[in-house]
Amino acid sequence: MPELFSKFGPEMAAVSLPAWLDLAALMVGAVSGVLVAHERKLDLVGFVGLAMLCGLGGGLIRDVTMQVDSVYMLSSPYAIPAAAGMGIFAFLFPSLFDKFSNLIEWVDIVSVGLFALMGTDKAIVYGLLPFSAILMGTLTGVGGGMLRDVFLGDIPRIFKPSNYYALCALAGSTIYYVTVMVFWLGKPWAAFLCVAVTVGLRRWSLH
Amino acid sequence: MPELFSKFGPEMAAVSLPAWLDLAALMVGAVSGVLVAHERKLDLVGFVGLAMLCGLGGGLIRDVTMQVDSVYMLSSPYAIPAAAGMGIFAFLFPSLFDKFSNLIEWVDIVSVGLFALMGTDKAIVYGLLPFSAILMGTLTGVGGGMLRDVFLGDIPRIFKPSNYYALCALAGSTIYYVTVMVFWLGKPWAAFLCVAVTVGLRRWSLH
Amino acid sequence: MPELFSKFGPEMAAVSLPAWLDLAALMVGAVSGVLVAHERKLDLVGFVGLAMLCGLGGGLIRDVTMQVDSVYMLSSPYAIPAAAGMGIFAFLFPSLFDKFSNLIEWVDIVSVGLFALMGTDKAIVYGLLPFSAILMGTLTGVGGGMLRDVFLGDIPRIFKPSNYYALCALAGSTIYYVTVMVFWLGKPWAAFLCVAVTVGLRRWSLH
Repeated sequence: MPELFSKFGPEMAAVSLPAWLDLAALMVGAVSGVLVAHERKLDLVGFVGLAMLCGLGGGLIRDVTMQVDSVYMLSSPYAIPAAAGMGIFAFLFPSLFDKFSNLIEWVDIVSVGLFALMGTDKAIVYGLLPFSAILMGTLTGVGGGMLRDVFLGDIPRIFKPSNYYALCALAGSTIYYVTVMVFWLGKPWAAFLCVAVTVGLRRWSLH
Repeated sequence: MPELFSKFGPEMAAVSLPAWLDLAALMVGAVSGVLVAHERKLDLVGFVGLAMLCGLGGGLIRDVTMQVDSVYMLSSPYAIPAAAGMGIFAFLFPSLFDKFSNLIEWVDIVSVGLFALMGTDKAIVYGLLPFSAILMGTLTGVGGGMLRDVFLGDIPRIFKPSNYYALCALAGSTIYYVTVMVFWLGKPWAAFLCVAVTVGLRRWSLH
Repeated sequence: MPELFSKFGPEMAAVSLPAWLDLAALMVGAVSGVLVAHERKLDLVGFVGLAMLCGLGGGLIRDVTMQVDSVYMLSSPYAIPAAAGMGIFAFLFPSLFDKFSNLIEWVDIVSVGLFALMGTDKAIVYGLLPFSAILMGTLTGVGGGMLRDVFLGDIPRIFKPSNYYALCALAGSTIYYVTVMVFWLGKPWAAFLCVAVTVGLRRWSLH
């Protein structure tokens, strides 16, 4: 059993989630970017630009706002090639993404959940105050999509009525913070809950 | 008499303004945000989002740009709940804000003045160069409103002709810098002058 | 011969380019900003705002993202006055810029090349990973223009089809990184190559 599972207690709060989760959030975010590029029939630069904006943007907002530790996208040797590579791959094989285009809402919200998780977790690791940690999670969750909307000249969806992205990210971040810091739940379970609540709330809001 | 009033001289430049002024700037900024949300009939997410953007945005731009000391909104236990609470309160009691809606210009410019003050003061405390301190004040002053305009899909007002927000913030920051660093005026008096000049210039420009 | 020319080898990678190059990038960027302000018939605030956005924006994005060393525009005593002064000068003597208005594309791309150079070089000096250094160069190169477009309510040109700014910046940054870090070419020659490739590729793409 990995260390994160085998121990429970306050001292585990400072142990970061495994690095592959950062990469997973990045990849799902990048896919949400290329799906938009696909929808708008952008060129290669647009595909790579949106993959990087949506894959790296949330984490960059997190790291620049918190100003602690390194900037993930710069210090990880995988982050930039992974995001750019996803953009190039999607541009070269657009037909693979045709069948995904009705999944865009799902990909979007899973990406929001994963980024909310990574934002809240970094804030917990660095001992931020509860409200600060939850805000960092929410901001990291919706940040990439907000940047994308602003750069594409759209009004960010979080400022459009009946759109509950931000609330989903807020709920996910809060669940993660409370389960880890109040109930000392193991981080992997709390992480699963965070993403499940974010995605579930979104699905439920569409009914 | 508080310490800030009783002493005069160069050594006082490094003493920050009292923390409640940061909170006051935040609250006035948040009110300017909810008045816009009210005007545009946004939902709860929009109210809270704009309250936080306008209440916390200027200070965040300041802290992220200067990269010294902590990020105010993350290190203060009051900042995030105050901004979010103002958004929720304004959404629940919209009728209270009906009578304020013709005050939106006043609230806006007082918020610009207070943020210009807090931006210039932090720059002075950390010993920035004169032009840098004045730019930080101006940027902090107009930052929240600029973010709001960009996120709402408007062209920021500072890039529209005949709009002198930025000049008012510049004048307020300059007055504060000069009175504190050249004339060694006590910070509370200089702070009063900063806000008065910002608001007065704006009022005068509307004639 | 200046030190940068007289020595070759790995140990020279950590020696920054001379500071006047930062100022040169800033001035060319500021000119690209005032040409847009001129074109749109903005007022003095618009001229100064765009000169500062385009002159200082790219470097600010670089410094805020990398979070190492000081923020150039705040620590240099020349940066802010130079950018603001260019805005004032261009507003006062618009006729001087009439003859430049067909040069706007040239000024833009030289500015992109110079900023890509300064971004990549700072990343090399601080030992960033190859992909990170090249991304920092590209982002610094296109950052000022992206900010300008977002603030003017345009869709950033890098997200419009058939616009190869970002590719030019990417090529320039890559050339600089490879010539300096792989072939240990002297920085001045590599810098020249970086700007020449950025500008040349752009010129070529317009045919």
